[in-house]
Amino acid sequence: MRPFGTVHLVGAGPGDPDLLTLRAARLIGAAEAVVYDRLVSREIRDMIRPGARRVPVGKTPGCHSVPQDRINAILIDLAREGLEVVRLKGGDPLIFGRGSEEAAALRAAGIRVRVVPGITAAQGMAASTGVPLTHRGLATGVRYVTGHRKADAPLDLDWASLADPDTTLVVYMGVANIAEIALALIAAGMPRDLPVMAVGNATTPRETRRVSRLDRIALDMQRADPPDGPVLFVIGRVVSLLAEATRSTPLPASVLHPAAREAARA
Amino acid sequence: MRPFGTVHLVGAGPGDPDLLTLRAARLIGAAEAVVYDRLVSREIRDMIRPGARRVPVGKTPGCHSVPQDRINAILIDLAREGLEVVRLKGGDPLIFGRGSEEAAALRAAGIRVRVVPGITAAQGMAASTGVPLTHRGLATGVRYVTGHRKADAPLDLDWASLADPDTTLVVYMGVANIAEIALALIAAGMPRDLPVMAVGNATTPRETRRVSRLDRIALDMQRADPPDGPVLFVIGRVVSLLAEATRSTPLPASVLHPAAREAARA
Repeated sequence: MRPFGTVHLVGAGPGDPDLLTLRAARLIGAAEAVVYDRLVSREIRDMIRPGARRVPVGKTPGCHSVPQDRINAILIDLAREGLEVVRLKGGDPLIFGRGSEEAAALRAAGIRVRVVPGITAAQGMAASTGVPLTHRGLATGVRYVTGHRKADAPLDLDWASLADPDTTLVVYMGVANIAEIALALIAAGMPRDLPVMAVGNATTPRETRRVSRLDRIALDMQRADPPDGPVLFVIGRVVSLLAEATRSTPLPASVLHPAAREAARA
Repeated sequence: MRPFGTVHLVGAGPGDPDLLTLRAARLIGAAEAVVYDRLVSREIRDMIRPGARRVPVGKTPGCHSVPQDRINAILIDLAREGLEVVRLKGGDPLIFGRGSEEAAALRAAGIRVRVVPGITAAQGMAASTGVPLTHRGLATGVRYVTGHRKADAPLDLDWASLADPDTTLVVYMGVANIAEIALALIAAGMPRDLPVMAVGNATTPRETRRVSRLDRIALDMQRADPPDGPVLFVIGRVVSLLAEATRSTPLPASVLHPAAREAARA
């Protein structure tokens, strides 16, 4: 009998295969079995070795998908067969996405787990748009939260703590609840005109950007076609730097930081 | 005359060269000039093409190093010579590290800038220790701040907002000020016994881990030899999962989350 295989929890990054780490690319090309989410791009799936077992366990928000217990069981079974397994997850496996739960289940079953980090969507967005996550004078830090909630449960967020205009706030999985999020942030003291950018399919050829402000973003999202891929909301003054980063698409003065407004006038 | 070169702001990741992105590795191997910080590891510098111009601009906290204006001028000059330039920065160029300031200076000089994200130290720490940045029931989000300050200026942090035990708090560059940071967080309402982990040189063969709690971390750091590389503080309940991740180093029960304590007893 073959000894148990190792399961590598591998971050697939934001979508662009060129943003995989060297280790992730090597493991994807060598794995005997790859278990992957819906968010993993086609280009990355094309890097899987021909002949490797492919197991899609697509998590689509709000849609039927493979339950977490079942995913854990699949990973354990593959490793017990002695296969070298890659569990491929969008972004970074230990930022949202429940990678640590899978790791705990595997370890409890006596299976070796290794984690390979991935570029998370916020970083991909920053690199492709030029909007930094921190910037002297605009944001002293950055914070990632999820805007997703189960069924009709209330959003489990500490609004008072989130209402800090000196921190860039990045909301993952928030499309369905952005109206409630924006309203709660304003009620907790965030400026109504704080810039917000919604980025869809960051780092891919299908990337979209929509710039608005906290009191209008929900309406702006409703007015346009619903995005068909993952959307990230970036809330904070750093969004005003988009004007500098992409000179071809000037922003309305209302969403610009004073410094950027000066620069736009010059 | 050659046209201006492009400057690529490239994230070198946390230290392990295997955690570079595919794009970063390719650009480092192809660049005609590489301008790099002290935090960029030797293994990564060894990937620079022989014959490429190498310009160290080592930023050591508190020590003399090349001022930011001078770095900007060096990058502009190299690009004006028509060279393809890589500006290599530890971690991710748009999370701390002033990458967006360099990008703005370059754009203002008419030079094309491209950004390649990198695995930030917090992600590297998570992957190598198994301590996740988010975890259902322990942390709904994650937040990165810097504990660095200029000369004797007060730390510019919103303590009330930071004192959210449901968010994993990662402090970069905080070694010199961890006593003040821990005290301020406790004063703002964080539990005194909240687990804290100090990770030095994350992802490298010299990685060190020290687990403590908020009211003892400063003392614990003083008792041991001062760390010789970058140190990251991870503050939050997710640290209790280290016990599961690395079974060989059991933690004292006092720092464990109740769930982990149960598991340790079992």
